[in-house]
Amino acid sequence: MKLATLKNGTRDGQLVVVSRDLKRMRAVPALAATLQQALDQWADVLPGLQAQSDELNAGTRPAEVFDPARCAAPLPRAYQWLDASSYLNHVELTRRARGGEMPPSFLTDPVMYQGASDEFMGPRDDIVATSEELGVDLEAEIVVVTGDVPLGVDAQAALGHVRLLGLVNDVTLRGLVVPELAKGFGFVQSKPASALSPVLVTPDELGAHWREGKLHRVMEVSLNERPLGRPQAGEGMHFHFGQLIAHAARTRRLIAGTVLGSGTVSNVGDEVGVCCLVEARVREQLREGRMLTPFLKHGDRVRIEMRDDDGASLFGAIDQTVRIEGARA
Amino acid sequence: MKLATLKNGTRDGQLVVVSRDLKRMRAVPALAATLQQALDQWADVLPGLQAQSDELNAGTRPAEVFDPARCAAPLPRAYQWLDASSYLNHVELTRRARGGEMPPSFLTDPVMYQGASDEFMGPRDDIVATSEELGVDLEAEIVVVTGDVPLGVDAQAALGHVRLLGLVNDVTLRGLVVPELAKGFGFVQSKPASALSPVLVTPDELGAHWREGKLHRVMEVSLNERPLGRPQAGEGMHFHFGQLIAHAARTRRLIAGTVLGSGTVSNVGDEVGVCCLVEARVREQLREGRMLTPFLKHGDRVRIEMRDDDGASLFGAIDQTVRIEGARA
Repeated sequence: MKLATLKNGTRDGQLVVVSRDLKRMRAVPALAATLQQALDQWADVLPGLQAQSDELNAGTRPAEVFDPARCAAPLPRAYQWLDASSYLNHVELTRRARGGEMPPSFLTDPVMYQGASDEFMGPRDDIVATSEELGVDLEAEIVVVTGDVPLGVDAQAALGHVRLLGLVNDVTLRGLVVPELAKGFGFVQSKPASALSPVLVTPDELGAHWREGKLHRVMEVSLNERPLGRPQAGEGMHFHFGQLIAHAARTRRLIAGTVLGSGTVSNVGDEVGVCCLVEARVREQLREGRMLTPFLKHGDRVRIEMRDDDGASLFGAIDQTVRIEGARA
Repeated sequence: MKLATLKNGTRDGQLVVVSRDLKRMRAVPALAATLQQALDQWADVLPGLQAQSDELNAGTRPAEVFDPARCAAPLPRAYQWLDASSYLNHVELTRRARGGEMPPSFLTDPVMYQGASDEFMGPRDDIVATSEELGVDLEAEIVVVTGDVPLGVDAQAALGHVRLLGLVNDVTLRGLVVPELAKGFGFVQSKPASALSPVLVTPDELGAHWREGKLHRVMEVSLNERPLGRPQAGEGMHFHFGQLIAHAARTRRLIAGTVLGSGTVSNVGDEVGVCCLVEARVREQLREGRMLTPFLKHGDRVRIEMRDDDGASLFGAIDQTVRIEGARA
């Protein structure tokens, strides 16, 4: 089952069930007006949603055309956004570039931060920043959305609480990261709103690509219609999503609708490229002694997508244009 | 106007308007079923809510008895919880106790973290932890709840976006703080759910006590019915709430219902006591060379309240008992 949220002038938008091929959709107001409502009473609404999905996929009843340009984020505002850094190659590279080493504890204790969830951008919304000097960067990641997760859940049981999967562009302002993290309390100003993929999908839609808590597909990231990264998301994810959920729930339960990110997807080899610009710069620094790739500029276009074996888009594409408002640097 | 949320078996509870003396209340389903709904359309519902409040205060119409024991948090789940550390005396003490100094930049750049907002505890809910070894601590703070705040708002204009004020007990697991912060990404496991006061109030209820973005009342904190702290919350708050909101909104807008905390209230002198146990321990360390005060134990009772000149409770009391579940240490 694939679910999306249409912009309709309300804060939470309109939940729609979308066909597997992302071509048709249907609103389901009798079941749930919004995705959060569906997540709040998942067991009750799932059979009805599934029946709608089956009909859409069979093409047996009329449906509307699905247009990602009409989409809000599936959760335009959420109660929680937790983001990990589970691709340790990314962590190791950025540490090395700063002359340090990754602490050995990172191999056993996940790195995760509490992010801002009061707004998620729609998949085609502009990335707005006040200045290019902020060092605007993308980060292509996988997300899961959980149901209610009990305090102290173990990693295996945690996987049973994954309701939906999708993609996120975790927009980051690199110019603010180092001074903000030096203050010791994590990210506030350096992580503005992130964008979610047009649809989120139930795990069964992914078949064997979703196994052992990882999504075994290639993350396709393009910048201005040229490939930037094509890493295999199933490789290099040190902690799987069950372990990440268990980490978050060690000292408290998590409420339904929690969005949890994998961290920037990263493979070891240079040849598959990168899922964020800072990693391109770090690889250049380590390889050539200097950083060449600039951060995002006004008008730049970022595209993030993941496909099935036959080339069909699994989640639809995040496709955003950078808009610098205020004084241009 | 004073607003509370009753537990009613739903995730967001039932919004009620509460009389100034916290004795009577009335549900207002025709205006808003939940506090988030009211915040979502504040300008539209404010006149109606105010009329209900005026009637309650005048005692001209029947009303139900208000009982804080029936309360959920005013926002049982919120879209954002941002917590600052604006009482720099607290920051300076804890740094000194660790043998360091507070960076001079903390005088000009607020320290703030993104906290978990998917669950706020009700004012009488137990503080549940799996072990006393986690170092369970309270933190008594003031919170504001904002309306929609535009990107880049200045500190003065930001104060115009304060919709409600109240108190929070920002529960902290001290045993996890140092190793977690050492990872560099802020708090996840060391900050479980916080508790909010029974009611939140509009700024006009506070009269001259609310001025220049600070609340000039004594924070009353008790442990097991003995006074722990009585600091003046109007003193030592280095950045006022307008400055804190502006800091959070520097790179993104904030969505209505954002809860923003002052940080643990702290005055310089030892004689007014403390609003968290770690500060008592740090003061002991600096004064006597060793820490004596233990962290919270199973069965301990924490009370946080603030009063008007005539002794009347402004927000009702946060009054929580610690419950250690699982193996006792």
